[in-house]
Formats: sequence, C-alpha cells, structure tokens
Amino acid sequence: MKTKLVKDLKEAIKLSGLSDGMTISFHHHLRNGDMVAVMVLDVISELGIRDLNVNISSIFDTHAPFIEYIRDGVITGIETDYMGGVVGRAVSEGILDKPVIFRTHGGRPSDIISGVSPIDVAFIAAPTADPMGNCTGKYGKSACGSLGYAFADAMYAKTSVVITDNLVDYPLTDFSIAEDYIDYVVCVDKIGEPSGIVSGTTKITKDPVGLVIADYAARAIEASGLLVDGFSFQTGAGGASLAAAKYLQDIMLARGIKGSYGLGGITSYMVDMMKSGCFKALLDVQCFDLGAVESIRTNPNHREVSASHYASPSAASSAVDSLDVVILGATEIDTNFNVNVHTDSNGYIMGGSGGHSDTAAGAKMSMIVAPLSRARLPIVVDEVLCKSTPGSTVDVLVTQRGIAVNPLRPELSEKFAAAGLPVVDIRELRDAAEKQNGKAKKPTLGNKEVAKVLYRDGTLLDTIYNVPVK
Amino acid sequence: MKTKLVKDLKEAIKLSGLSDGMTISFHHHLRNGDMVAVMVLDVISELGIRDLNVNISSIFDTHAPFIEYIRDGVITGIETDYMGGVVGRAVSEGILDKPVIFRTHGGRPSDIISGVSPIDVAFIAAPTADPMGNCTGKYGKSACGSLGYAFADAMYAKTSVVITDNLVDYPLTDFSIAEDYIDYVVCVDKIGEPSGIVSGTTKITKDPVGLVIADYAARAIEASGLLVDGFSFQTGAGGASLAAAKYLQDIMLARGIKGSYGLGGITSYMVDMMKSGCFKALLDVQCFDLGAVESIRTNPNHREVSASHYASPSAASSAVDSLDVVILGATEIDTNFNVNVHTDSNGYIMGGSGGHSDTAAGAKMSMIVAPLSRARLPIVVDEVLCKSTPGSTVDVLVTQRGIAVNPLRPELSEKFAAAGLPVVDIRELRDAAEKQNGKAKKPTLGNKEVAKVLYRDGTLLDTIYNVPVK
Repeated sequence: MKTKLVKDLKEAIKLSGLSDGMTISFHHHLRNGDMVAVMVLDVISELGIRDLNVNISSIFDTHAPFIEYIRDGVITGIETDYMGGVVGRAVSEGILDKPVIFRTHGGRPSDIISGVSPIDVAFIAAPTADPMGNCTGKYGKSACGSLGYAFADAMYAKTSVVITDNLVDYPLTDFSIAEDYIDYVVCVDKIGEPSGIVSGTTKITKDPVGLVIADYAARAIEASGLLVDGFSFQTGAGGASLAAAKYLQDIMLARGIKGSYGLGGITSYMVDMMKSGCFKALLDVQCFDLGAVESIRTNPNHREVSASHYASPSAASSAVDSLDVVILGATEIDTNFNVNVHTDSNGYIMGGSGGHSDTAAGAKMSMIVAPLSRARLPIVVDEVLCKSTPGSTVDVLVTQRGIAVNPLRPELSEKFAAAGLPVVDIRELRDAAEKQNGKAKKPTLGNKEVAKVLYRDGTLLDTIYNVPVK
Repeated sequence: MKTKLVKDLKEAIKLSGLSDGMTISFHHHLRNGDMVAVMVLDVISELGIRDLNVNISSIFDTHAPFIEYIRDGVITGIETDYMGGVVGRAVSEGILDKPVIFRTHGGRPSDIISGVSPIDVAFIAAPTADPMGNCTGKYGKSACGSLGYAFADAMYAKTSVVITDNLVDYPLTDFSIAEDYIDYVVCVDKIGEPSGIVSGTTKITKDPVGLVIADYAARAIEASGLLVDGFSFQTGAGGASLAAAKYLQDIMLARGIKGSYGLGGITSYMVDMMKSGCFKALLDVQCFDLGAVESIRTNPNHREVSASHYASPSAASSAVDSLDVVILGATEIDTNFNVNVHTDSNGYIMGGSGGHSDTAAGAKMSMIVAPLSRARLPIVVDEVLCKSTPGSTVDVLVTQRGIAVNPLRPELSEKFAAAGLPVVDIRELRDAAEKQNGKAKKPTLGNKEVAKVLYRDGTLLDTIYNVPVK
C-alpha cells in the first residue's frame, strides 16, 4: 500500500521534489491565524531551496516573515488575491524584483486549472485529515470551515501535501478534498492560532454614518425590484455591509420574502439570515467566524463550494453568475465608478480584489457602500489610484449623502427615485467629499512596477508602482 | 447570466458542437433502467451525426438498440468496463469493425483524466439537477444514489450535458457534480425505469453449495489475520458473495470487531453491516439497490466517491489501495489464478472487469468465490478463455470442495490450514471439476479481434476474438 504519511515537513518537502525556481502554493482559510505558510518556508529555507514563486490566495499580517524570505532570495515571486498592510508596505517599497501578480478569487482557480499559473507543490493546511489525505476544514482544534480556495491547488498541483494538526483514522468520510489528489500527509502540533483563524468578521457598525448608509443600501435593494422570492445575496464583512444585511433581513422578514441563497465569505449574520428563513441555502467558499464554521459542519443547506464554483470566469458557470445583489466596500471610488481596494491613499498596497470584481461582474446589481470620506480623506475621487474593479461592473454607490447610480443603469436611478431615495450624481458626491476634506492629494510614486492587477479574465487592469522610501 | 437550460436534447446536442467522428460518453448508474443513452443516440441519429465513439462505463441489455446504431454506422467504436450479453453477443459476432476497448472502473477515469481517452461530449443522466447543472443521484423519481462513475466525464469532457427528469430550483446544495463543469441542462419526462435502476442485487443464496462456499469464505477471512478492528471490505452482489458477507457479519458481531469501511458497489447488505456496527463508513461509487440509495441520501457516514477516488491506478491513491479483503466472482479461473469475467464458455462477451482487477490489485487479500462447475461446465480450468484479472493479484479461490491459495501467498495457506479449513491445490480443484463434468471443450473462435482487454494501467491483458456465426 502506498504510504503518504511522512514523519515531518522536511521529509515531505524532500519527497515532493521541490527545487529552486519552482512555484509553491498556499490557501488562506486560516486567515490571520495561519501558521502553515511560514512553517513551510522555514523548512524550505533550512533546506537551502531558493528563488520560489509563492501563489497564495491571500496574504495576512501573520505572513510578515515572508519579508525576510524575500530579502534572503527564498521568495522571488508572489501571486495572490489580497495582501495585508505589513507585507504590502514592504512590496510597495520595492522589496521584490518581479512585480506581484494580483488576481481575483475567481481568476486564481481559473488560471490554475487552465495551466496559466501552474503549481509545482501545493501545501494544504487541513484542520482534519486522514493518513491518505482525505481532508476537511470542518473539524479539529483549528477548524476553519470551508476549504474552497484550496480545491484547485490540490487538484492541479504536480504534488500536493496536506499538513494537519488533527489526524483521524481512514477513511474521513466528510472530506472536502479527496485522497486521489494528495501525495503526502504531515501531522504537526499546530497549524493555526484559533483567534486569528476567525478574525475576519467585524461587528455590525454602531456609527451613525454607517447606519445611514446601511439603511439607504437596504432600501435601495428593496427598490431595485430584485428583492423577491428567490433573491440571492452576497455581502462583505465590513461594519456597514453587515448593518445593511441586518436591515435587509428585517425587510425580508416583514415582507415574507423567501430568498434562495447567500454567497461568499460567510459570517454568522448570513447564517442567521438563513436560519430565519431569508435564504434556503448558503454557498460558502470561506467562513469568516465560528458561527459560520459551526453551521457549515452541521447544516446540510450550508454547502462548501470550491473557488472555481464560487467565481471562476472560465468555468461553465459559477455561483456569482446567478447572484442578484452584492454589497461591496471600497477604499476609493472614482466618478467613472472604478473601485480601488488594493492601495491606500499613500499608494501602499493594503488589500486586493478577493471576490470584489468577480461578484461585481456576476451580480445583477453590485453596490458599493462607503462613507464620503475616511480619516479626513475623500473616498469619492476623480480617478482611483488603482483600478481594482472596472466601473462598468459597478452599478451603485451608497454614501451617507445619497446614492449615485452608474449611468449605464438608468432604470435603477428611476426606481430609487420613485422609492423616495436620495439619488445624486456621483460628481456631487465627489464635490461634497472634497468640500468636507479638501481634494485628495495624489501621492508621488516611483517608476518601479511593484504589482500587476489582473482582471478576472487575465487581462491587465492596472499596474501598481513603488512608494519611494523617504 | 449564462443560460444552460435548453428546450430539448436536440438543441443541447446542436449546441454541444457534436459532429461525425467524435467521442461521447455515458455513465451506467441507472443500470438496466437507463433510458438516457438510447434517447441521446436516437436524437443523434435523427440529426444525421455518424461515426461516433461511445465511452460508457457499462452496457446493459437495455442498451440493445446500440446494435442497430452500430449497423447504421452511428456508433463505430465502443469503450466500456462491462458489456451485458445482448450487446456482447452482437459484438462477439463481429458487428463492429474496430475492437471494443475494455477498461476497468479505475482505468476508465484514469485514462479520461490523463487524456488517453478524451471525451468530446459527456451526457450525464442526473436524477436531480438545477438549471445551472449542479446535480445528484440521491433524489428524484429516478434516484440511483451515487454518481461516482460520472465525475471524470463531467469534469474532463470538452462539453458536458446534464439530462434530468427532476429539475429543482437553484442552488441544489447537495450536489455531487458542480455547475462549474456543466455546459447544458435538459429536462426530459423520464431518464430511467426505476425497477431496472436497482436491478443489481441478487438475494443471499439459499443454494447449499453456495452456502458451503460462503461459510468457507467467511472463515478464511477470519483465519487470514486481517479481520481485526479497522478491517475494510468489498464484496460483489452475487448470491454466494452476499452470503459470505452475512456470515462475516455474524463473526464480526460475535467477536466485537469494529471495521473501518465497506467499499464499492453498495447493497443493502453492506448498509446493514454498517448499521450493525461492523463498519464506521461506506465509500460508495455505485448503489445496487433502494436500501443503498436511501442510506447514501440520509447517512453522512455513507459517502459517495468518484470512480477515480474508488479505484484509479494513476491517482495519488484510491480507496482500493487501503482495502483489506475483497470477495469477487469468476466465470472461469485457471490454475495460474487468472480470472475470466468477460466471456462465457462459448467465447461470447457477457461481462467485463468493472472493479474486479482494481480491487484484486489493491486488496491485501483478494478472494474468488465460485462453485467447481456451473451448468455442467467446469469453472476451474487449465487456461481461461480471456484473462480479465491477472493471477498474480488473485490470492484465494474458495469452492465447495476446498480453498486453493495462490503459491505467491504461502502464509495464507498456513493460516487457513491451522484454522482447520480444507486447503487444496488448485489443480486438484480443476481435476475434481473435470471429473464431475468432463474437460471443458474450448470453443473454436475466429481471427477477427472484437475486443481488447486493457489492464487498469492501460497495458493489453488479452484480446477477444469473434465467435463465428454458424
């Protein structure tokens, strides 16, 4: 019988045939609690392997040691869908010679499956696994729920290594990823820090400005005509988005509307909406909190989906294609409705698309909720510093000062106005933002390309340049 | 939004781009109740498309109309893992110019996934589906349980068409095959005849000879040393195999042995073994009866696996690799332990490997149960007419006249003898069979190659020649 269970990570890496110049991959379901990516890189570095391309679905601040491995030449390329501020700052300051490749959560599996971004060795952090590699995120002390982002890695990497801290007897029947894709299994003491794993959910906002925005957002959804039986919905985990979801729930319950599904990164708030009858199902590519983890483990109507099933533009279809409404955030939005979620006002990388442009493209109505300004910086601007999501796919901007509708969707304007909602031109919102805080001063950037932002179909959306170190 | 639901099969076939010379595929989960393969070929024929290669996981007598489509030049090639007697007779008489390609249930997905046997259009009979193609066999009037054999087809065909008679609202959460692989969905009145879908299970034998064999088989498993906690097991659905499983269950319950999993085509008998505590899990590539369908729908420990997960020799591992004991049948077995399950004593095709050689290769002990002779024809012979499973992977032959052990496994002989079981040389069994019924007369075959039998790894095991028509 084939033996896959090897004694430690070093042996697994040796057996995988990993060598200089190859591509390794990780998923981010353990979020800011992930210990696996750094653990693997520690061993790789110890083995003297260098010049690696790291394809990781998201980078959090827990991955700060990546910076040292970039400096040492262990990591020489990064492909990701999201990059938190710590690694983002170093990248923005030009630490990497090659530009980071940013994809979307749907574009990533699409490019892995098509062979555009091949993976040599995938390292799959798995909260529970059996010795043949059947694995899941639903159980164990490091349970994270869905393993949706890891499917393509496991299935298409030349070699796949499962790393678990909860090894169970064969066969694990409630597997997410099946043994036929897994070459080696390693059991370690701890793959993640539970508090960091479920760090994603913000609480519903109590900020009065946020609550006004949420109220407008919920009423705009009601006015759109999309809020009928069979309604499907995704929302981010930001405070105003969650408040909007809560108001929406109130409307759905009051009007007896039975939605079909909630999608995306799933929070307890979405679980509560399903439980209260607003949705018959949740399609879950990623769990944001313990309530979502508990639900996906126990409720058959809460179903894990792969990232390809969630959002791949090259799949026969994905769940975003059937989506009615998505509520999204923005760090900046310009008068052409282009949205920036990659860089801050100084040009530093501190985010990424995730599923932003996938859901914006798929949903019948994509809605950005944002205050006019944050920390005295206008959110509505003439031109975004980085185009993360093309304005042609963004339908509505909801602020505390009114709702701007993309001119491509005049019927929405009419419906909102008929419902008594304050519809305004997006340029008025820009003007109001500037009046509050002055015009945003564009940072002076260098001429080194530090990141390429690929749209979900693989075309280049934008290039991010370095922030000169003073 | 992409629309996949098309008005009828004709439109789906036109949209699929199917044209002369291509390969289409079907699965056999609806068994002898399947109406889909013939329904599709009727439309294909009506459209004037010809010269098709049909890759179907098994052919039953319900597929008799294939014969006309071969005569008409619509079907010019067949790849399958099993062929029932009706189509088998026509093929044996030389109706096809190209030899049929026989694979195993594990070899088929292996060759589909690797690209050795590419599929242009897969037609997936699905007892329940949603309009985007998420589908399952667990629900609906034509429920068949597992869709294990259809996974590779859906995932790797250039175009995949789901055909259902139970269309449900999006999203079907308990999907087996996900929408990202499905291009078109067609809803028809009826995909299968329920009585034929669950036609697979024989009852436990009441024949005294069969019961002796079953008793020896169960005691041999006990004596092998493999029947300990964690024991895993597969058995066929023949009467003696089921009786052996029943006796084994008695032993396990009496001795308090907690097995790990039952594998394979699953019957109610295996479900009962799980329920009674003999196994903690069932891994199910195919349901043989309504009890199995009910169980896979309701019991989370009864888990659907893909054919690749079940038995692919090129997968990182498959469930057969972890199997302790398999009980299998034979139409002939020779003194080198080679087994024939493809042809009858006249040389006519009437079967195929299915998972026979996959499980024989994977299991720690593979056991053939067979009477010395059937219908006055000896089962134990000098040389099988067709080598379906190589003798090197067959460990034990259990007959009513004793148990023969492959000389490659002397330790099993010793264990059986120590347990007081009647261990005999396989040549003695051959002699006894010949004494009962006379030496088997080899049929005179023609020199036209009507089928190639590929081993699970793709190598040629044997060639089947035509039976001359008198």
